[in-house]
Amino acid sequence: MYRTHNCGELRMEHAEQQVNLAGWVQRTREFGGMTFVDLRDRYGITQLVFNQETDKELCDRAGKLGREFVIQAKGKVMERSNKNPNLPTGDVELIVSELNILNASKTPPFTVEDDTDGGEDVRMKYRFLDLRRPQVQQNIMLRHRIAQEVRKYLDSQGFLEIETPYLIRSTPEGARDFVVPSRMNPGQFYALPQSPQTFKQLLMVAGYDRYFQIVRCFRDEDLRADRQPEFTQIDCEMTFVEQEDILNTFENMMRHIMKYVHNIEIDKVPRMTYADAMRLYGSDKPDIRFGMTFVELNDVAQNQGFKVFDDAELVVGICAEGCASYTRKQLDGLTDFVKRPQIGAKGLVYVKCNEDGTFKSSVDKFFNQEQLKTWADKMGAKAGDLLLVISGVKEKARKQLNELRLEIGNQLGLRKKDDYKFLWVLDFPLLEWAEEDERWVARHHPFTSPKAEDFDKMDTDPGEVRANAYDMVLNGTEIGGGSVRIHDRGLQERVFELLGMPEEESVEKFGFLMGAFEYGAPPHAGLAFGFDRLCSLLGGADAIRDFIAFPKNNSGRDVMIDAPSKIDAIQYEELCIKSVVPEKEEV
Amino acid sequence: MYRTHNCGELRMEHAEQQVNLAGWVQRTREFGGMTFVDLRDRYGITQLVFNQETDKELCDRAGKLGREFVIQAKGKVMERSNKNPNLPTGDVELIVSELNILNASKTPPFTVEDDTDGGEDVRMKYRFLDLRRPQVQQNIMLRHRIAQEVRKYLDSQGFLEIETPYLIRSTPEGARDFVVPSRMNPGQFYALPQSPQTFKQLLMVAGYDRYFQIVRCFRDEDLRADRQPEFTQIDCEMTFVEQEDILNTFENMMRHIMKYVHNIEIDKVPRMTYADAMRLYGSDKPDIRFGMTFVELNDVAQNQGFKVFDDAELVVGICAEGCASYTRKQLDGLTDFVKRPQIGAKGLVYVKCNEDGTFKSSVDKFFNQEQLKTWADKMGAKAGDLLLVISGVKEKARKQLNELRLEIGNQLGLRKKDDYKFLWVLDFPLLEWAEEDERWVARHHPFTSPKAEDFDKMDTDPGEVRANAYDMVLNGTEIGGGSVRIHDRGLQERVFELLGMPEEESVEKFGFLMGAFEYGAPPHAGLAFGFDRLCSLLGGADAIRDFIAFPKNNSGRDVMIDAPSKIDAIQYEELCIKSVVPEKEEV
Repeated sequence: MYRTHNCGELRMEHAEQQVNLAGWVQRTREFGGMTFVDLRDRYGITQLVFNQETDKELCDRAGKLGREFVIQAKGKVMERSNKNPNLPTGDVELIVSELNILNASKTPPFTVEDDTDGGEDVRMKYRFLDLRRPQVQQNIMLRHRIAQEVRKYLDSQGFLEIETPYLIRSTPEGARDFVVPSRMNPGQFYALPQSPQTFKQLLMVAGYDRYFQIVRCFRDEDLRADRQPEFTQIDCEMTFVEQEDILNTFENMMRHIMKYVHNIEIDKVPRMTYADAMRLYGSDKPDIRFGMTFVELNDVAQNQGFKVFDDAELVVGICAEGCASYTRKQLDGLTDFVKRPQIGAKGLVYVKCNEDGTFKSSVDKFFNQEQLKTWADKMGAKAGDLLLVISGVKEKARKQLNELRLEIGNQLGLRKKDDYKFLWVLDFPLLEWAEEDERWVARHHPFTSPKAEDFDKMDTDPGEVRANAYDMVLNGTEIGGGSVRIHDRGLQERVFELLGMPEEESVEKFGFLMGAFEYGAPPHAGLAFGFDRLCSLLGGADAIRDFIAFPKNNSGRDVMIDAPSKIDAIQYEELCIKSVVPEKEEV
Repeated sequence: MYRTHNCGELRMEHAEQQVNLAGWVQRTREFGGMTFVDLRDRYGITQLVFNQETDKELCDRAGKLGREFVIQAKGKVMERSNKNPNLPTGDVELIVSELNILNASKTPPFTVEDDTDGGEDVRMKYRFLDLRRPQVQQNIMLRHRIAQEVRKYLDSQGFLEIETPYLIRSTPEGARDFVVPSRMNPGQFYALPQSPQTFKQLLMVAGYDRYFQIVRCFRDEDLRADRQPEFTQIDCEMTFVEQEDILNTFENMMRHIMKYVHNIEIDKVPRMTYADAMRLYGSDKPDIRFGMTFVELNDVAQNQGFKVFDDAELVVGICAEGCASYTRKQLDGLTDFVKRPQIGAKGLVYVKCNEDGTFKSSVDKFFNQEQLKTWADKMGAKAGDLLLVISGVKEKARKQLNELRLEIGNQLGLRKKDDYKFLWVLDFPLLEWAEEDERWVARHHPFTSPKAEDFDKMDTDPGEVRANAYDMVLNGTEIGGGSVRIHDRGLQERVFELLGMPEEESVEKFGFLMGAFEYGAPPHAGLAFGFDRLCSLLGGADAIRDFIAFPKNNSGRDVMIDAPSKIDAIQYEELCIKSVVPEKEEV
């Protein structure tokens, strides 16, 4: 037996006991004829003590242990004279009588500590060392905990975890599929699933009633920062339910997770329509940790001679509480912020609500004190507040003001990572116009049902048709979304038609699903959560790759194992494919 | 709300309550002015009643419901006059006052019942209907239950569920990899993992201590019956453990599963060396639900003039209890059985131990009664038993007798599906000789450690080196296996060398792992269970595809979604590959 206890386990109650520990050498130090070794494993750190006087040879060997050596130490647990209150094991130490080096270690290329000296590239190449850092270990353990609690909750609610295939059929629509040449069926390919959508719907048709899976999904996209070619979803579907049932069930799932992972009780999750979210926050994923909602000012700010406003479709502002004291420099900073190309505003109007009841604005030439007061009143501003106003085409102005609102929220410290505010956003549009392709595309996916009361707009005004679709938002990030599905072949055909998919193509790609709808398909609905993102938010971090054991970089490479890589000639031959890489691109 | 209760829920205590049910029409029948509808969902069946006298129109509509229609029924729960004790809901029925057809159904191409009239092909094409059959639903629900209990147990033991990547590097060694062309890295490919072996070892190097995952694995093999190109493993690894720790931990996992899934307490799992398993059962996965172990007869049967035996390396027999009464026809049947090409024995010698103490054998010409008695004594046979003896080259004779033993076990009803006998088989050989390639290959995999006491044979007699490797066997089927791993770079290099892998190749393929061994790799060990097979055995069935929601057929096709399939020209172009299918093979 390598160990009787782990390195986070020993307490005063173990004093005088003979124990074996095994772990990694975090550091060694010599002091007053003694050698101290911090021995580390996943569970904690325990101090080992070697005494020059008691056993010189042993003490000398301990002194020569390098960082990250793997050792086994046997000895007696003793109360420490100088206890370390910062360490759970800090009341005791192990007086070592036997030391075995289980494996040596070269000097690591970076320090295995939270505050490491290693850059991203070297840490990814030596990911097995990076994964030893306590913060990363906590992330991975948090992910484990969340996964277990998700399953525990869903199992308790009668959901069945059912595995769906990873080798499926390529039906590119939206993102690109990863494909897998089939050796047994030359000239044909499997695809890796972008999601198990059609399979979970078939499971509902098959009567499984409640399904879930924590499942890998694949998308061959050009990777933006913090996107991974493979990612994990909590995928769920329910039968004989309406939207209300879904909202309650999964709100309770979040409640369960927050309670059992973070010991936080969350309130009833508020709900907001997509239309309201856009109007009040300029975003379909509002961060409701703070207010500062939009106020539309067209009626009080237009037709008073300021051409910029008069020509705008929308004049809209936010009230930044207590920010009237912002300096010229700070205000210029905000203007520069919204004028950045990524945001693209033409300018920013400010109004300071001075403590003395007067106003100082960047548009004093056009608006008098009384006029500015009507703005302030409309926005519920009080002395000391700062009004920030943007104008332009409605959709753009809202997006720009959304960015500004979030920036101010950051500046004022209103977006605390451990303040968890969930929100349901409802009634999304069914379709959105794809400029490039000049056609309607499904905003969620083509299996989403339109709202019955909007059926008549499908012919006349498709952009106005709302869907039975919902997103769950946490702190301004979409963490999940879904819809009530279509379960009627006729309606499904109608939607494919709206999306400009020729009947031949829809039958070729989704005939199996539409066929299934003809054999007693029940009403069903579901949703999926982005598991990587959920973990990172609940872990208080931004980057999802900090919560993935072996992530890929922005070129889709795993630099540790050096994948992807070339394959053998025999593999090409057996798969009946040939590489046709333009020479300059050959890597 | 579509329903207040499910179809398996109503009992006498619900009598007089107004409820809503939703489900599928199993069947309708008319009797004495009433229409009865069996309404089915995953949870059960409830009888709906429509009365011609009370509401003729409603009753007529009910009479027209077709099989598999999806309906909602509202009404009052009433005690049944003729109760059905075979149905959990059989004490009550629902007197329906409102009927809504939620979706119609075409007539299914086969009956949705356990004893269906649909053949394999049509059931696979309409898998969403096949999945409605109660037996299949029970299989899928059993699989869910086992998965949850596995996780519950491993979580309670401090194992962390950590996801490893699906897009990895191709390192063909043994089975073929499925590969995935990388669009972002033209000319390069990912591979789908045959198992997460190297990643789980890296997680041990990274200090995660205890890892598990219920994970999909992929193998591009020519599919034998009941093999799937994608299959699921319970994959586990532990740090600072010896073989004994692994055996105890996973024996307890099985104990937990058997208890919480089947309510069966299992005893301490017996252990047997590979050498003993081969000697006593002629198999490395003995079915120990029954005895009939091998007895070697060389000393009593050779050198007495029967050339077949005299020339044989091994003469070995089993004693079939109570089978002396087998007829000539039955004995010929057994001889034919072992002479089938798949088994390949030259013949079978029998000795009947007659009730009167005499013997009747197929070799009476060569052996007298006294000689036959020494056989019977050696085999512990008593009057009424039948001795069956095979001879030849040791390994082949054992394999043949193994097949015969299992056949006799079947004939005697000694292999009951609900009699669960687990067994550990230990001390497997490290290597086996691959005739085709004329080289040693790893019997388990190249990361398995040789037994320290056999190190010296690695140079002189590699075939005799035993590994720290173990299999768990259930009822004659291997359900899992693993090993204590190598954690030392030098030893790992030595094993790659033994396997005839040039250093250049081993560094190219596994350099990341050997590199990791140089930075403080701890001793570690693990194993993996075949999850599909485990489910099928615990479900009392033979075919794993009955326990997979969407299996593929023997050509690796999903006939429901028709995958694999052709892909678009643009996909080829983006991936920089070209199809080079010989014309005759184009499909």
